[in-house]
Amino acid sequence: MIKVSVMYPHKPDARFDHAYYRDKHMPLVKARMGDGCLYYTVDKGLAGGAPGSPPTYIGMCHIFCESVETFQGTFGPHAKEIMADVANYTDLQPVLQISEVVVEK
Amino acid sequence: MIKVSVMYPHKPDARFDHAYYRDKHMPLVKARMGDGCLYYTVDKGLAGGAPGSPPTYIGMCHIFCESVETFQGTFGPHAKEIMADVANYTDLQPVLQISEVVVEK
Repeated sequence: MIKVSVMYPHKPDARFDHAYYRDKHMPLVKARMGDGCLYYTVDKGLAGGAPGSPPTYIGMCHIFCESVETFQGTFGPHAKEIMADVANYTDLQPVLQISEVVVEK
Repeated sequence: MIKVSVMYPHKPDARFDHAYYRDKHMPLVKARMGDGCLYYTVDKGLAGGAPGSPPTYIGMCHIFCESVETFQGTFGPHAKEIMADVANYTDLQPVLQISEVVVEK
């Protein structure tokens, strides 16, 4: 199994609507990917490692799929629609990463 | 619930022993934290978002706890021992982040 992590770097004056992200955007992703997305998780950045420091990422999601091909095959056809929704919750550019799930919950 | 993400930035010539991390280091963390760590997950970075690009992080773990105080209270007393084990699997300096778990599996 793999996970696709979408990570939004924290910037002091950036906009990020956590409620929209949780209630609208991520359900849209799941709806379009269908069973291609086994499940997903969402994080809200609280703090960095040093006392009083901001988090590296203000928001993250992790999309779990059977394989990279499954992700590409089920996200790809809807990428345009999904990406068009991003402006509704943030003006940040996310960092993407694909990881192998070594230990799952 | 919160998660503490420990993320090791990918560098071309860095050392990272994924097997040791999975089989020795993370079980050590869990053993020392006890019930303070509800569970943890481990990722191995495969690729970045752009075709052919490396992952931002070569390895990550996410430690799930009831609260920041629980993490501090159960990890803190063992931090010295746990940190001393890091050299056994990597020469990288991790990035730490604390997040609120908005959507869990």
